[in-house]
Amino acid sequence: MSKTKSHDQPTHEQPTHDRPTHDRPMRIGIAGLGTVGAGVVKIMQRHSDLLAHRAGRRLELVAVAARSRTRDRGVDLSAYDWEDDPVALAKREDIDLYIEVIGGSDGPAKASTTAALKRGAHVVTANKAMLALHGAMLAQLAEEHGASLRFEAGVAGGIPIIKALGDGLAANEVTRVFGVLNGTCNYILTKMARTGRDYSDILEEAKDLGYAEADPTADVGGVDAAHKLALLASLAFGTKTNFDAIAIEGIERITLPDIQFAADLGYQVKLIGSARMTPSGLEQRVAPCLIPNHSAIAALDGVTNAVVCEGDFVGQVVATGPGAGEGPTASAIVADIIDIARGGNRPVFGVPTSTLVDASPLDPGAARAPFFLRMTLNDAPGALAQVTRILGDAGVSIDQMRQHGRAPEPAAVLIVTHEALRSNVQSAVEAIAALPISHDHPVVLQIDKG
Amino acid sequence: MSKTKSHDQPTHEQPTHDRPTHDRPMRIGIAGLGTVGAGVVKIMQRHSDLLAHRAGRRLELVAVAARSRTRDRGVDLSAYDWEDDPVALAKREDIDLYIEVIGGSDGPAKASTTAALKRGAHVVTANKAMLALHGAMLAQLAEEHGASLRFEAGVAGGIPIIKALGDGLAANEVTRVFGVLNGTCNYILTKMARTGRDYSDILEEAKDLGYAEADPTADVGGVDAAHKLALLASLAFGTKTNFDAIAIEGIERITLPDIQFAADLGYQVKLIGSARMTPSGLEQRVAPCLIPNHSAIAALDGVTNAVVCEGDFVGQVVATGPGAGEGPTASAIVADIIDIARGGNRPVFGVPTSTLVDASPLDPGAARAPFFLRMTLNDAPGALAQVTRILGDAGVSIDQMRQHGRAPEPAAVLIVTHEALRSNVQSAVEAIAALPISHDHPVVLQIDKG
Repeated sequence: MSKTKSHDQPTHEQPTHDRPTHDRPMRIGIAGLGTVGAGVVKIMQRHSDLLAHRAGRRLELVAVAARSRTRDRGVDLSAYDWEDDPVALAKREDIDLYIEVIGGSDGPAKASTTAALKRGAHVVTANKAMLALHGAMLAQLAEEHGASLRFEAGVAGGIPIIKALGDGLAANEVTRVFGVLNGTCNYILTKMARTGRDYSDILEEAKDLGYAEADPTADVGGVDAAHKLALLASLAFGTKTNFDAIAIEGIERITLPDIQFAADLGYQVKLIGSARMTPSGLEQRVAPCLIPNHSAIAALDGVTNAVVCEGDFVGQVVATGPGAGEGPTASAIVADIIDIARGGNRPVFGVPTSTLVDASPLDPGAARAPFFLRMTLNDAPGALAQVTRILGDAGVSIDQMRQHGRAPEPAAVLIVTHEALRSNVQSAVEAIAALPISHDHPVVLQIDKG
Repeated sequence: MSKTKSHDQPTHEQPTHDRPTHDRPMRIGIAGLGTVGAGVVKIMQRHSDLLAHRAGRRLELVAVAARSRTRDRGVDLSAYDWEDDPVALAKREDIDLYIEVIGGSDGPAKASTTAALKRGAHVVTANKAMLALHGAMLAQLAEEHGASLRFEAGVAGGIPIIKALGDGLAANEVTRVFGVLNGTCNYILTKMARTGRDYSDILEEAKDLGYAEADPTADVGGVDAAHKLALLASLAFGTKTNFDAIAIEGIERITLPDIQFAADLGYQVKLIGSARMTPSGLEQRVAPCLIPNHSAIAALDGVTNAVVCEGDFVGQVVATGPGAGEGPTASAIVADIIDIARGGNRPVFGVPTSTLVDASPLDPGAARAPFFLRMTLNDAPGALAQVTRILGDAGVSIDQMRQHGRAPEPAAVLIVTHEALRSNVQSAVEAIAALPISHDHPVVLQIDKG
């Protein structure tokens, strides 16, 4: 066989590890020396020998690019060439692998990534926004030029979920992938639940602690989670990333009563990103949801992330870990480097780009789920009767109902429905909102089995 | 660069996926057609096209080997050649990849695996016992002959934990890996806790349900978990598998009072496999432990497994999922096949075999932890004073103490210690056991922070 093999099998199947160590190091350039970039440099310096053993060759940082040459990043950069322009770094002939940690979906990040791939250099990035918007194009570019493009650090920080989906669960037809993909939101929601303090108060605290950006819109508005979801969905279902098809709702409208009433009913409120392949199309949603207390992700605390994958043979696998931060994100980037240095061949989104399909999105109204409704009603005789009649007429049946407060104060009314069509729930809620007894527009949160 | 590259870089770095599809299928043979082997055939039949896309070439099952040709395995085997002898199958020149799911640490499993590797054929196995005992030898054989040897299915069933440790967390110096590695034990312990029924009763039920073997010794005695732990430890720490150095304690002595008293104190009893690198050596233990309720693995239910990895940069990552069963185990095997078909190059235990070290085992007595002690004492005046004095003299300080029952009945005394040296706790317990007031030998369980 070994004689046959050398003729019959391509040489790329010869494992590197049966050679003592690869003759030539993998030469690396990093653009972006913020927290994550500096973290990557620290790992490469501290674990230089360990990484060489694991990768089968030395990893050699050659050059870096960042705006400020003088800022103290807590790491010695004196051994590396400096480029001011990331594109110039990406084009350097002495770089085999280009690390893009500049950020931003377009601009220098995209320009430099494109430049690297076009000359056949491998790219490792943490840039979920860039890939969510330009993933299929960049993957095709990588493929055309025989380069790898990896983004483990773009989704769920230190959790190796891209490898889990792309390699570990590759035997399965994935039916659903979902999880808690944004640590800032999870910090705010769990802290609200624990302390009974309100949203804006906790948000300010999160900013002070560095858990939220000065402009937190992308996090609390769900866009960051949606970027990550777009990548998970592509990998899970072999579809082209389609960020625009994601229904996005943030946590800005979640109030303390939502959290407290949900808790009374046995649920936690979490911002859930969920992608599900159905016979009627691909559902991609980011929205605050109620998760039952017994679910694997209900207990997730603070900035921890979790991703749940469901496959037809494996069942449910859950991965939990730090969703952000210097160490975890840099850990994911260096894992990608090692994988490429070993000659890892996973296509960018798990299958050849030519076979990635444009999935038709599921009509959001066509999804079925149980829902949690919170409304404030004048506690007048017959008020509940009006509400329940509207729901019944819309084909929405009630699983649980609770009322808090009594006349003359308006009453909080909480309803958990049985599984219902989202469009039916929404039309019923509009009708309820239009009732004279309604104090404000009802809150509608999907209940996710978790 | 692309011009340079073709000269300068080895051709194995050319991703397969920029070729339309690999010219030649990966030809596969399976030895062992029990539940897992039949599951592998089912996946390969059902997902034939999907797997080809993901692997970059077709996966072609060529031949099978099993004892009975007539048994109904719920899958059509008529298209495959049949071999009666696994070694003959492993030696077939038309097989690129040999799947060993016969089981048993030696005998036909080892003989056929050795035969396949010696001719440079890749091997995928679920056989933790074989690798725990012969891992370093087989890894070296694989390396010498340029073959891959993969065992994702050997540890934690469908959870892709070998890939997570070997690839996903490869940037880290791993400090500890631990978890719930045996579903049978977890089923028994959680069922005892939930129903208040005793060990032997639940064990019989588990046998009836197929969650325990007719001879459950390897599971309940901790040996199965220890086999898995040996593999995790080798991969995590770059050490040679050393099964003999694992301190193994099963769950046979766990009683309902242990579980109930632990619950009163806020703990769950779990069979934990744990490997930890310390400055004084490698600690490898399998033993029932108390896990605090708030820990990620305390809520694990039934036959679910969980593995926790701690790395110096990533922090803590937890993976949870089905630890056994046809679908999950077959899913792990087929993932290994895809990885090899793509040309995946991870060394068997993460680093070249020549660099695997013989770790010196940590003296079991030298480990420090908090402990849970349960003893039955004659409720005589001064009884507790004697016990607490012995503990104090041994340098073991008490965190919590509770007493249940009163004279003339003997009393159950429960003690949670602060962190203490295991050898000190053990000598104190021997002294307590020797007291005339002691009814039986105290139960000692380590408390694991989880």
